[in-house]
Amino acid sequence: MSDSTAEILLHIRDLLAGDDSTAMRKVLAGLHPADIAELLGELENEQKVRLLKHLDNETAAEVLAAVDERSGQALLQLLSDTEVVSLLGEMQSDDVVDIISQLPPEKSRQIDALLPSGEREKFHELLEFDEDTAGGIMEVETVAVQEVATVREAIELVRQLADQIENLQNVYVVNGEGELVGTIPVLDLLLHDSSEKIVDLMDDNVISVPVDMDQEQVAALFGKYDEFTLPVVDSSGKLVGRITVDDIIDVLEEEASEDIAMIAGTVEDEIGETSPLKVSRARLPWLIIALLGQLLNALIMSHYSLSIQEFVALVFFIPLVIGTAGSTGIQSAVVVVRELAVGQRSDAHIGRRVFRELQVTLLNGMILGLILFVAVSVWRHEITLGLFMWIVLMSVTIVAGFMGAAIPLVLSRLKVDPVIAAGPFITVLSDIIGLLIYMSYVTYYVSNIRS
Amino acid sequence: MSDSTAEILLHIRDLLAGDDSTAMRKVLAGLHPADIAELLGELENEQKVRLLKHLDNETAAEVLAAVDERSGQALLQLLSDTEVVSLLGEMQSDDVVDIISQLPPEKSRQIDALLPSGEREKFHELLEFDEDTAGGIMEVETVAVQEVATVREAIELVRQLADQIENLQNVYVVNGEGELVGTIPVLDLLLHDSSEKIVDLMDDNVISVPVDMDQEQVAALFGKYDEFTLPVVDSSGKLVGRITVDDIIDVLEEEASEDIAMIAGTVEDEIGETSPLKVSRARLPWLIIALLGQLLNALIMSHYSLSIQEFVALVFFIPLVIGTAGSTGIQSAVVVVRELAVGQRSDAHIGRRVFRELQVTLLNGMILGLILFVAVSVWRHEITLGLFMWIVLMSVTIVAGFMGAAIPLVLSRLKVDPVIAAGPFITVLSDIIGLLIYMSYVTYYVSNIRS
Repeated sequence: MSDSTAEILLHIRDLLAGDDSTAMRKVLAGLHPADIAELLGELENEQKVRLLKHLDNETAAEVLAAVDERSGQALLQLLSDTEVVSLLGEMQSDDVVDIISQLPPEKSRQIDALLPSGEREKFHELLEFDEDTAGGIMEVETVAVQEVATVREAIELVRQLADQIENLQNVYVVNGEGELVGTIPVLDLLLHDSSEKIVDLMDDNVISVPVDMDQEQVAALFGKYDEFTLPVVDSSGKLVGRITVDDIIDVLEEEASEDIAMIAGTVEDEIGETSPLKVSRARLPWLIIALLGQLLNALIMSHYSLSIQEFVALVFFIPLVIGTAGSTGIQSAVVVVRELAVGQRSDAHIGRRVFRELQVTLLNGMILGLILFVAVSVWRHEITLGLFMWIVLMSVTIVAGFMGAAIPLVLSRLKVDPVIAAGPFITVLSDIIGLLIYMSYVTYYVSNIRS
Repeated sequence: MSDSTAEILLHIRDLLAGDDSTAMRKVLAGLHPADIAELLGELENEQKVRLLKHLDNETAAEVLAAVDERSGQALLQLLSDTEVVSLLGEMQSDDVVDIISQLPPEKSRQIDALLPSGEREKFHELLEFDEDTAGGIMEVETVAVQEVATVREAIELVRQLADQIENLQNVYVVNGEGELVGTIPVLDLLLHDSSEKIVDLMDDNVISVPVDMDQEQVAALFGKYDEFTLPVVDSSGKLVGRITVDDIIDVLEEEASEDIAMIAGTVEDEIGETSPLKVSRARLPWLIIALLGQLLNALIMSHYSLSIQEFVALVFFIPLVIGTAGSTGIQSAVVVVRELAVGQRSDAHIGRRVFRELQVTLLNGMILGLILFVAVSVWRHEITLGLFMWIVLMSVTIVAGFMGAAIPLVLSRLKVDPVIAAGPFITVLSDIIGLLIYMSYVTYYVSNIRS
């Protein structure tokens, strides 16, 4: 929060304490709904409602659509059902659906009963779509003209619908069956003679989004084509809605948070969560899997306890060997997963990709091994031990790097989200493999080289 | 690559082998420039140039702006300087600057000399901006009208400039000094009488971006205000350009890749990089730091070699203890870093945030410790050892969780990018602290409890 926001917040708290609604309206008029939403997050629940009542219905709706989920929940609890319905009437359909789907079932039923019947059906249809698909993020409000319409007719339609649709960018052109056949930027309507036919001006090379497309792929389409809005069509090619790029920004942040959470061994819901119980539950599954993996490590070591007792110095390097294996494995895995996520998915590249990883880890293993060789030779005064550790480190990094790259690639080919391989799973697996390699080398070393 | 893309690619390869330029033009006319750019990535360099020459200048420029960096470099090398200059003439200024800054110095000088002098100065100014700031991603092309202009005059200006500006969304309003004083959506020009004054219609509550703002903050502004374009102003409030949301999508992907790369202990440049040498260089610094940390671990253990020899079974659990410490530390660190990245930065929350982390790790430590207690009691038939390991695990997770949360928060307060704490650094630190705690407990256990 910036200094000026903090000042405004103080001022608003003062005004809420008093009763000067003219002054309050004046302050609020100078703020963007998104700023009011941010301020709302800092107020007590009861203050939130009082602030909202100082706003006109349209602004209040924009604020409600922009607040964080927690503040939204609180507001919806404190507002009466009729107040909620009147605010929903001012919103784009995608925001309405977001809010309805967050309500407790009881409240949701009450609100539902108060909606105008045409609206109710529309929202029910939208609620059917998986929230991670194009249908789940689209809004149904579009401006669609028939291909036989003239520029004048299109402008007339835009004028009628302009205040219902935010950020109107393109007019969509449909044929008699409602199938999407072209688009035309609103701006182009300004540039052409009003008697010209839409069909002659439209771009019929239209990029559209299937309603059941995964939101991550939708985001990739926006990224590729640099569009601000894209039309959504059903399986028969009929226009059913549009997606705006501001929702794509939310998708990208959500997907990045999801991947980052997975890499750390938790779930995206945890980010911003304040209940320790919920956070604990988000993290425990991976921690337990890691713990079981490490118990396997303990078993492996107990198997080698004779070698350990014979040569304690080799124990000192256990954390080093498994730590390096873990770091190498996670580097390979995370980079491969990210490359898959930003769209470099060609199957033909798998072999090349794994081969490159082997080259990189061989190189890194050699250099890390050299450093270790020098350190061990100086510290323990044993060149043989130094050479031994060098070979260990090279073997371990190559195997860990190979696994780190191969596992996500294989998962991706099996249509499993490769990011599950990029977290604690690969670290623990690298630990286990690293330890196994080390312990077999140690046994060989103790029984053949030192004796 | 989808099946249909692969088919088109085959077709284009056939056409390039032959000489039927009419058929080629027909195929290309059905493709979006972004699709052509994707196909180009699959062709040989010499084929790339030949394909480009089948396109009209405007489309070729769009393709060049959309190709990946490697293909772009190859094309720029193979095209003559005059061809490059003529393509640059069709591009938005931000794309031109991207391309010029990628050219080798020699080529860049030659191209520079061929640019019209007005253009040259404009690009030189743009090249001055740090590429990670608003100035580095903005384009200078805008439609700016004086506040005293009428709707008719504004429409006239839009008509004149429309073909030079992609995705025109808003007309910016400036005063006599060139200072930005308002905005008006192009669409609104359609809805008002042509004799109305712009100053009466414009929104004077204008959100603008300072030219030196970091691109990550710019992306946060777009995310907050749901805008498709935002005007950029210099320190005196003068309008200098605009940023479009398609560039923000690139920024978000880049920043997410950067964070993910950091967490894995490498750099963003590695993603998509094919040279093993460059990849190795990207990863080695963190690996070496981790190795040095693990050498410290080896030293610590050598200090406790007496305890180790006396009670080998306790060695078996070393990977488990440090692995759990590492997992816990990285979970706390990554979640805190992500919360900071998505904008939850209030300083007042630091104390609360760390306290929550202590609650979570206490809870998780208790549960993990319980599992370990059962496993150890059953396996080693020693309830005391089980209890001991329970206490160890709780201590270790709490300390690792505390560090994981506190270090990024402190870094963020010191204005250092907290993500550097979320990678191998926190893992190694947790390993070391975990080992230290374990070894001191072991010494106490061996000398006081077992004896």
